[in-house]
Amino acid sequence: MQTLDLGLIAAHLEGLEETIIHRLIDRAQFAANPVAYAPGHSGFRGAETESLFDLRLRHQEEMDALFGRYHVPEERPFHRDLPDARRRVQLPEPPLRIADLDVVNLTATIVADYLRFLGDLCASHDGADDGQYGSSVEHDVLAIQAIARRVHYGALYVAESKFRGAPDAFTRLVTADDRDSILGLITRPEVEERILGRVADKVDYVQRTANRQVRRLIRPDTVLMLYRDTIIPLTKEGELRYLFNRTPDGAT
Amino acid sequence: MQTLDLGLIAAHLEGLEETIIHRLIDRAQFAANPVAYAPGHSGFRGAETESLFDLRLRHQEEMDALFGRYHVPEERPFHRDLPDARRRVQLPEPPLRIADLDVVNLTATIVADYLRFLGDLCASHDGADDGQYGSSVEHDVLAIQAIARRVHYGALYVAESKFRGAPDAFTRLVTADDRDSILGLITRPEVEERILGRVADKVDYVQRTANRQVRRLIRPDTVLMLYRDTIIPLTKEGELRYLFNRTPDGAT
Repeated sequence: MQTLDLGLIAAHLEGLEETIIHRLIDRAQFAANPVAYAPGHSGFRGAETESLFDLRLRHQEEMDALFGRYHVPEERPFHRDLPDARRRVQLPEPPLRIADLDVVNLTATIVADYLRFLGDLCASHDGADDGQYGSSVEHDVLAIQAIARRVHYGALYVAESKFRGAPDAFTRLVTADDRDSILGLITRPEVEERILGRVADKVDYVQRTANRQVRRLIRPDTVLMLYRDTIIPLTKEGELRYLFNRTPDGAT
Repeated sequence: MQTLDLGLIAAHLEGLEETIIHRLIDRAQFAANPVAYAPGHSGFRGAETESLFDLRLRHQEEMDALFGRYHVPEERPFHRDLPDARRRVQLPEPPLRIADLDVVNLTATIVADYLRFLGDLCASHDGADDGQYGSSVEHDVLAIQAIARRVHYGALYVAESKFRGAPDAFTRLVTADDRDSILGLITRPEVEERILGRVADKVDYVQRTANRQVRRLIRPDTVLMLYRDTIIPLTKEGELRYLFNRTPDGAT
């Protein structure tokens, strides 16, 4: 979705919440399984020193790169040494002004935060290990991709939209390197509060028909914290990076 | 989950419903995009004669094979010429008695049925093509894998469980090649009705907090029909195949 209407951007971000929540709930059906994240325990022939999670993320991104995923601005990869796309992705030119999209790439922080968050996400399991390492990392990668899409879409399109709403003010503050004032301009506490409340409500609601005897539930405040401590701050960090690296109008 | 308690098997199958529903809803955020399923339109260098969907499914299964997915009995692949696992998957020996799990492999029919079903699933879009081919086939593969897991898990474990509840009757009917009587023994209309009602309710419920302006909704009866016309009949077809190919007790 390539719009610079702030209302439509916010609506698109809202529409991504369900996918994030679905994927977190699906991941939480498995235990935290710390072994899957421990380097040297992958059991993967030829890559014994890595963790199973690292291997899965790399293989997924290599496949996705072949299919052209990273030509999409909001799809930013964790790895930088990925193969070229074998597919021509025909998308309209995005209304963004940035020479290198990976200036805004926050995937490394997203992954680190997500891995810290896993213990809380999987807290409804009796033990930390159910042996389902392959399924765990498969679902991790899907959850991380959904989170990263939300962060990078927000960072890129919200920043460009807000810039166009007040180009002189942003240009002046960027020139003055006044990060705090820019952060003030791009922060809307009432919007953040509304997102947190809505996300927690959705987590509660989408699980109400699940049979608790067979389906692990996650706590609404777990996802709320992921939004509060990771998704929202990283989106704003991405907006800052975008604004500080925005190509001036008229430049090519 | 490796149990032969029919109640626990049914509970596990119920727990898989949410994942199927989540993935169908996520797929339905994109248009049907028939181009992505048309051979010769992949735009994929070196594989121009295939469809983008076929390529995605093959790449996904090749990756999953490396990670050992197909060592799990209920994870059956569409492709048969997949690479060997590079990972040793340590799972307890399943309580199944079948020499070749792929006798029960119904993935080809699942894929064919799923592709026919896509038009209904994506009916809330104004047009059939939104250009999001890569995202569409990515989500297709995830949905198909969730459906296939449900069908094959049900086929294998329900059949073995029911066999053990009446080994003499099943042995006699298999010897007599009496497929209809076996189908009668493994069919429980009241259970099927309950599943259909529950699935439709879940589809309705999990979408209630979604903002209809930004999130495509799917119709409960669409998923109900997928269960009625594909998932339930194929599970029973898999049960039949299992029972006709079951290794006699005592044999190795």
